[in-house]
This record gives sequence, structure tokens and C-alpha cells, in this order.
Amino acid sequence: MLKRYFPIVEWLPRYDRQTLSSDMVAALIVTLMVIPQALAYALLAGLPAIVGLYASILPLFAYAVFGTSRTLAIGPMALVSLMTGAALVEVATPGSAAYLEAAITLAFLTGIILTLMGLFRLGFFANFLSHPVVSGLLSASGILIAASQLAGLAGIEASGFTLVTQASNLLANLDAIHWPTLAIGLASVALLQLFRRARPRLKAWGMNARHASFLVKLGPLFVVALTTAVCWAADLPSRGVDVVGDVPGHLPPLGIPSSDLGVWRDLLVPALLIGIVGFIESVALAQMLAARRRQRISPDQELIGLGTANIASAVSSGLPVIGSLSRTVVNFDAGAQTPAAGAFAAVGVAFVTLFLTPLIYFLPIATLAAIIIVSALTLIDTRTLRRTWRYSHGDAAAMLATIVLTLVQGVEAGVIAGVGLSIGLYLYRTSRPHSALVGRIPGTEHFRNIHRHQVESSERVALLRIDESLYFANARYLEDTVYGLVAEHPELEHMVLICSAVNLIDASALESLEAINLRLKDSQVTLHLAEVKGPVMDRLRYSDFLEHLTGRVFLSTYTAWSELQQGHQPTAHNAEAPLGDVTTKP
Amino acid sequence: MLKRYFPIVEWLPRYDRQTLSSDMVAALIVTLMVIPQALAYALLAGLPAIVGLYASILPLFAYAVFGTSRTLAIGPMALVSLMTGAALVEVATPGSAAYLEAAITLAFLTGIILTLMGLFRLGFFANFLSHPVVSGLLSASGILIAASQLAGLAGIEASGFTLVTQASNLLANLDAIHWPTLAIGLASVALLQLFRRARPRLKAWGMNARHASFLVKLGPLFVVALTTAVCWAADLPSRGVDVVGDVPGHLPPLGIPSSDLGVWRDLLVPALLIGIVGFIESVALAQMLAARRRQRISPDQELIGLGTANIASAVSSGLPVIGSLSRTVVNFDAGAQTPAAGAFAAVGVAFVTLFLTPLIYFLPIATLAAIIIVSALTLIDTRTLRRTWRYSHGDAAAMLATIVLTLVQGVEAGVIAGVGLSIGLYLYRTSRPHSALVGRIPGTEHFRNIHRHQVESSERVALLRIDESLYFANARYLEDTVYGLVAEHPELEHMVLICSAVNLIDASALESLEAINLRLKDSQVTLHLAEVKGPVMDRLRYSDFLEHLTGRVFLSTYTAWSELQQGHQPTAHNAEAPLGDVTTKP
Repeated sequence: MLKRYFPIVEWLPRYDRQTLSSDMVAALIVTLMVIPQALAYALLAGLPAIVGLYASILPLFAYAVFGTSRTLAIGPMALVSLMTGAALVEVATPGSAAYLEAAITLAFLTGIILTLMGLFRLGFFANFLSHPVVSGLLSASGILIAASQLAGLAGIEASGFTLVTQASNLLANLDAIHWPTLAIGLASVALLQLFRRARPRLKAWGMNARHASFLVKLGPLFVVALTTAVCWAADLPSRGVDVVGDVPGHLPPLGIPSSDLGVWRDLLVPALLIGIVGFIESVALAQMLAARRRQRISPDQELIGLGTANIASAVSSGLPVIGSLSRTVVNFDAGAQTPAAGAFAAVGVAFVTLFLTPLIYFLPIATLAAIIIVSALTLIDTRTLRRTWRYSHGDAAAMLATIVLTLVQGVEAGVIAGVGLSIGLYLYRTSRPHSALVGRIPGTEHFRNIHRHQVESSERVALLRIDESLYFANARYLEDTVYGLVAEHPELEHMVLICSAVNLIDASALESLEAINLRLKDSQVTLHLAEVKGPVMDRLRYSDFLEHLTGRVFLSTYTAWSELQQGHQPTAHNAEAPLGDVTTKP
Repeated sequence: MLKRYFPIVEWLPRYDRQTLSSDMVAALIVTLMVIPQALAYALLAGLPAIVGLYASILPLFAYAVFGTSRTLAIGPMALVSLMTGAALVEVATPGSAAYLEAAITLAFLTGIILTLMGLFRLGFFANFLSHPVVSGLLSASGILIAASQLAGLAGIEASGFTLVTQASNLLANLDAIHWPTLAIGLASVALLQLFRRARPRLKAWGMNARHASFLVKLGPLFVVALTTAVCWAADLPSRGVDVVGDVPGHLPPLGIPSSDLGVWRDLLVPALLIGIVGFIESVALAQMLAARRRQRISPDQELIGLGTANIASAVSSGLPVIGSLSRTVVNFDAGAQTPAAGAFAAVGVAFVTLFLTPLIYFLPIATLAAIIIVSALTLIDTRTLRRTWRYSHGDAAAMLATIVLTLVQGVEAGVIAGVGLSIGLYLYRTSRPHSALVGRIPGTEHFRNIHRHQVESSERVALLRIDESLYFANARYLEDTVYGLVAEHPELEHMVLICSAVNLIDASALESLEAINLRLKDSQVTLHLAEVKGPVMDRLRYSDFLEHLTGRVFLSTYTAWSELQQGHQPTAHNAEAPLGDVTTKP
């Protein structure tokens, strides 16, 4: 019990010096990475940059206590910051105290929702977002995020969280472009891209592969240092270049959520969506890395870990946080052994917040915009779209719809449409199940589709194999298929439903089976079942269907065939035989 | 083509004298039944009684041309009238010209929606309403309909379409009860109940069973005649008893839909729901009766049939119409052979509308309320709820939620919640699929769950049978199950996924399989598939999964087992064996 809700008790007692040194090394690297990212993602959400640092301290401690992943690095993250900003502008004016208060409220609500979902073991909810939808969402938000920072890059006031509002804002303010700011921004982008592509070159120069990787990851930190230095040396703020400016050098103040119930209500749906999207991203990441070390994570406990991290963020005046892809991977590669690495990184961030904020006074906003743009562009993933299209046009269509809706209407609309379309697509696919009349391969106990194979069949006995669970969405289709068969075969006496692929029969399907049984009785056709699975049979025993069934339940198709054929000669059959085509494919 | 969209061309050329006489007899009985019902259901929707007759003429001709059921009797129906009333009070004041105009608009919209759905072959949409939800909906609307008529029975002004508004209206107006009206109402209820139960007695008196049935069905007509006569003889209208009053004795006037676009927009969702609910009820009925005579109906063409019937109703100033349960069954029993029976009934109703409306001047409103109450109470079906509960608590919970929401919030809320819950329940059930580690029954080629049977298994080779299609909702669950197995079995070398019950692998599940393949590779475990179905295999070939699969695709579990076991001794196993429990049941 204690172990389940407090995973920390599992690893803390066994903590030794070697684990400590692995964790410390990882923590140092993550701290250096988190600072520019945290500042940038806070800006992306329309918040003061320092809020990003606030959200990177306490949440890491909370996750260390309640989280099950050994390596997940918690903090602000691009997509979630975008969703945060989109939700906040609906309830407050950017820059106002109410806006920050709303951010705290949103983090708090997200935390409460995630924690409750965890306590009620609702982790499976996350499964309703399909891979293509999540991938589409990430691609579209990559475009949105990059576009949202073009304004910052050019020194224009930013506005809006959909592509249309962003584009029209940019076009309307083209004359307001601040050229020195744009120069710094473009230079930062160029430098960051250079770093990104530097890895093979560094290796070619003889550098160890791991060292090269780490150096590349520290690119943003280098660009921050360089542009800050340039800005300070040339006194660019006096020439109108926006910088981070004065930042209070103290630990996060206590966060107090909004006292306006209307704000809570307006933020409820965004909090739910941020929670679910964040949870999916984090769990997928944590699961992937845990599997590499043959460790396990518990999705329900992860909800509690992320939930308490968000509550901790709210308490310390932060914004919603989740597991960060880039930092988590670095943390893992650097050898983090336990969540203590996260706690050490938090100590590092706290140190920076306390003592080093004067150093970022001259950090240009355009540099942070450049960092966001470069990392956002990596979210765009056209390969998955192409692959999905090749595998399944339906899945790809759901993905495309998610992309388009996210770009036009924002992330929330994209998520909702994506979930709806995935579910609709699945229901549509299972609503017209593949079914096949089968016949016996002569001399064997095997049965195959009469339209694909040379098999024996009979006008008196129809063997219908159903390749899907039977539930409400296909119950009437089953009735239709069976009645159609009966209408087409006037000599039919026995109808055998082969249920080897039927994993479930719900109450609707049961009623349809009862209706079929009754109607076939009216038509003097006996209904039989064959190869019913154990769990399905157990369930059927709770109804009186088996008592009223006109025929029998056969263990195998072969038994059904041989007993029903007794005294009758089967007729040889092939694909051109007169038996009607009931083979349908969704 | 002609045959598909105009089913009339199939039966009209073969129409002969014998069919004519069968149809005429059925039409006569249906005409006598339809008159009190049509008047009552129009009142239920808050419309003048005569509108019910208008809706029982032209729509029957339209359905005769476009419908595929030979016996479905079209017209106003209780549940649909209730939904119509609930939709109309939102946009207009009952009794006003705008209210009638809105009714015409609603019928028109419903007709257009149904026709379009038919042309686009969207009949499968109806499948998303599960049997338990439809049954719950009918039960709840039975209560709602009966409650809504208590006011009419007591001579109180009616109001509202939810149980709460109806009850509070009744309680607030208890002092307004008109006792003579209530007396007529209660007497009508008593007489109608007497008729309902008269069948066994009539048979005991030696009457032919069929004649007895028909006599019983004409009960409402008899009660109408009797109370009208009493009302006329005692001049009750002068004592305050509400009667139908003056009805224009002419054919339906041309219906003109509302010119207010806002009204159209507000009626769009109600029209959609009325269309779908009506379609489901009609198709279920038509299908049941067609199966008895080994005929077939086409759901998509039925949409067109019902759609044109509703457009016809709108054109002739009527309200939304669908197939009526009671009249359809009578039509079938009376021997109707073709939709011409419906057309003849329409001629009968037209005759009544033209020449006999003076006869219903003295028909008390309370009698019509009594007719509705008695027929509405038959909709309440607690048996299905009990049976569903016994078979599946989940399905029964969805049904109960539909009932409660319909009562509290109205039919629309009930339908939406019911659909949502059914889908959610199904997704939940399939999101944690049953899976089982299987072992070989010694000396055979059969494999069974190692926790239920005495089988051979191996610590090196895990045979995992998955009893569900793999799609987004269970893709991560599959990953979790597999990773869990790998974490628990350090000696594992081969993981075989047995896919005999996997009917579908969507893009999400494919990605999970790819992830599993990669992760297992990292853990030095080889992934194999076995018993993959033809259509699933065809689809997998569109991806590069099979090229990257570390292991092989085996045709049978036995082949997989014997090839992977080569040179190794299997260990005997039973249910107490150390292999972890991955058998889970939703």
C-alpha cells in the first residue's frame, strides 16, 4: 500500500554512494538544459520568464516522491505551455496579475484532476488518444508554436494562439519589425541549428560520441550566454531590444489560485485536456525508457505523480508541468538511476533562481523565441503521416483532421476532434464485421471461406464465421447478414455461427441473437453456435439464451458439420458456386 | 438502379386482385386505428389534433413509393411526438402560428436529414444506439408521456417536457382540476384497460382468436365514439369540458416551413435525433416482420423512405412521422401484402378528414389523453432492465443512466448520454483485453491458459494469446502487458503473440507493436507472431513492420512452440506455477 502510493520508499532505502554520483552527474546536465527551456516556455504561455524557473523546482521534488519512472524529467514543456497560454487568454489579459493567478489556478486544477484520476485508477482514459492523433497534434502544435514565436523574433507584440490570429497579427505589424531584435533572433536560430548539426562533425574531429551529444544539448545555453553578453556589451536594451530584465532573486513565492469561481469553471476543460495530453506524453516516454532497463511504471501512479507535481507547481506560483521529452532523454543518457536526480536538478534551479538571475538581465527575448522555434520545428513529423497513410487511409484521415483543426481552431479543438474521429473510425470498422461462409477442405477438419478455397459445402447447412466481437454497433448488421442468407437459401435447414473470433457478446448482441433464433425458428431454420470461447460462454449462462436456442453449441466447426451432415452428401464447391456473397470488408 | 431507389417498381407490376383484397382489409382496420392515435399524438406534441390526420395521408403514399418494408405503417408516434413537442417549445409558443410553422420545419428538416443519410448510405449510424439504451429510452419516455397527459386528463393546462416541470405544474395547479373532465378521463382509462384485457375473455366466450385480437385493437375507437356521444348528449362543453371542437373539413393545406433561419438552426439537432430514433424504431420493426416472411429490407433505402415520408408530412402541414409499432403489427396480422395497404389507409384517413370531422367535434381532450396514457404505459419495460442487469451490470448501468437522464433532462439528453455511455463502455471493455499465457497440453497440438490447465511451458518462450482486436484504446495496455512479462521473466528469450482473435490492427497498435519489437530487441528478447489472420496480414504488408520484426510469423502456435523449443526441454506446469498472472478480465 505504502509502496504503491509512495514509490519513493522502494528506492530510497537502497540509495548508495554510486547511485548518488550517477544521479548528481545527470542532475548537473539537466540543470544546465532546463534554464533556457524553462524561461522560454514560460514566455510561450504569455507569462514572465521567471515563472518557468518557479515551475522547475518544487514539482521535481513532488514527482521524486510520487512518480514511478526513474528518469522522467518534469517541468514546463512546449505543447502544454501553448495550451496553457490559449486557455489563459480566454480568462485574463496577458501581463496582468489576474493572468498569473489564472496560470496558478490552471496548474492547481490540472494537478487535482490528474491526482483524482490516479486515485480512481482512470489511467486507461489516456488510451483514447490514438498514436496518429497524438502525432498529428504534435506536428500541428510544432507549427503553431514556431509561428507564435515569429513575433517575438521580430520584436513585434505577440497575439493569439491559432494560426490565423498569429498570421494576421504579423501581417498587420510588418512595419513594426525591430531590426536589431530580428538580427539577434536570426543569429540565434542559425547558431542553434549549427549546434544541432554539429554532432557528426565533433565526432569526426575525434570527440567521444557521448561527449559530443552532451555538448550539442548545451547549445541553447551557449547561445543564451553569447547573446546575453553581446546585448550587455553593446547596451542593446537602450536601442529597443527587449530583454528579460530585472528578475526578483528569491525562491518562488506562495501561489494563490484565483478566488473567482467563474475562472475555475472556464479553466476546467483546458485543465482536463492539458492533464490528459501531458499524461499521455509523459507515460509514453516513461514507458519507453523503463522498458529499456526492464523496469516498470504504473500509469495510475504516474497520474498521481504528475498531479502532485502540478499542485506543487501551483503552490510555488508556477504553470502546468509535465515530463519533458528532451530533458528526460538526456537525464536517461547521463545515467540517472532514481528520481533523486530530478530533486538534485531542482536544487540546481533553485540556486540559479536565488543567486544568478542578475546574469540573465540582458538575455534577449528574441533568443528565447529562437530556442522555442528551433525545438518546435523538430515536433513536425511528416514521416508518420506518410507511413500512416500507406498503412491505413482511415487513420491518416483522422490524423489530418487533427492537424487541420489544431492549426485553425487550436489544440483543444484538435484533441477533441481527434478523439472523436478515432472512436468513430473504430466503431465504423467494427460495425460491419468481416464474416464468411466457410466450407470443409475435403478430407480435413479445416474450414475455409467458400469464396477463396475449393471446399465442400451444403445448401442445407450454412457455416458462418464471424470475425469480430458482437456488440451494439454490429448487432443489427449480424441480423441483416443472417436474414439475408436465409432469404437467399430457401433450402437452408441449419445455420451455424462460428464464434472463434468473438471475444465479447454485449446485451445488444445477445438480444439480436435471441431475435435471430426466434426468426429462424419461424422460418424452420435451426440456429447453432460453434467454437464459443470460455469467457463468452460463461457470460451467456447468465441469460436464458442457451435454453431457448433451437440448435446446439458445438465445440468445433468439424463436429457441427459432421453431425448436421449425417445422412446427407455434401456438394463440392468453389468460388463460382451459387451461394451468395456475404463476405464483406469494412 | 430504379429498383434500388424506387422499390415500388418491384411489387406494383405484379399487383393482382388477391393482393388487392388482402391490402384492402388491412387498410380498413389500420384506418380505424389511426384516427384516434393521430389526433392524440398531435395533441401530445402540443399541436391541434387535426395536424395528426394531416400527417397520416401524404406520408403513407410517399413511403409506399420509396419504402422497402411491405407492412410498415407510417404516421405520428408517441415518442417522436414527445420529442417534437420538446423541440418546438424551445422555439415558439404552443398554440401560435409560429409553433405550427416550426412543426412543419422540423418535419421537413427530419425528412431532408433522413433522405441525405440514405443517399450517403449512413444507415449504420443507427447502430450506435444499443438495445439497452433504446429500451431505456422507451421506458423513460413511456413515463414521461403518461405524466405529460395527466394534466390533460384532469383538465389542467399542460406544460413542460421533463418530469420535474410536469410534476411542479401539476402540483401548482391542483386546485384547477376540472372534475367532470377528470371523470371522463378516468372512465376512458378504465374502459381502455378493460379492452386491453378482454382478449382471453372473448376467446373464452368462443370468439375466433384473430377476431378477438382485432376487436381489442379497436378499443380506442370505441371509447372515442362512446365519450363523444356522452359529451354531445350531456352538452358537456358548456360545463367546461375541453373538446376537439371545430375542425376544418378539407384536405391538408400546403405546409410552409419557417422563414426564420434561427428556427432552422435550433431545430437541426432535434431533427437529427428524431430522425435517428425514428429510423431505429422503424427499421427494427420492419426487419423483424420481414424476417418472418423471409423478405428483406434495405436500411439505407428505409432512410430514404422515411425521409420522403417526412418531407411529404411537412408539405401537407404535418408533424414528424415514423413507423408505428401498434399499427404496423395490426397491418401485418391483418394480412397486408404490399405498401399499397398503407396508401389505401391514407385514402381512408383523407375521407375522414374531408367528411367526418364534424363527428369529432364533441370528442373530449381527456379521452385522447387517456388513450395516450394507456398506450404509453405499455412502453415501460422493467423486464429488459432486470434481464440486462443479470447478463451485464455495465450494459444495465448505461440503460439506467439513459432512463434517469431522459426523465430529468428530456429525451435528447437521454439519447446523447445513452450513446456516449454505450460507446464508452465498449471502449473500456476492449481497452483491457483478456490475454493469457498459454502452454501446450502434453502430447497434443493444443495450447491452453497455463493458469487453468495442466500444460507444458517454458521460461525461455512466452506464448501470449491476445483475445481482442488491437487498436488505439488497448495498444498501450498491450505494451504494458508485454513489458510486464519481460520484467518478470529474466530468462525470457522469445515472446510469441498469438493473434487468432485479432481481427484488426490499427495504426496505433502497429506503432505499439513496432515499439514492443524495438524494446524487446534492447532486452535481447525476440518477438514472434503466430496465427495472424489473412486480412490482418494483408494490411501489415503495407507497413515495414514485418521487415523489422526480430522474429518470425508462424502459421500455428504449435509450429512456433516446437521450433523455438528445439534442443530445450519444456517444464511441466500447472496453475500454481511461478509464471506471473497476466490473465485479466474487463
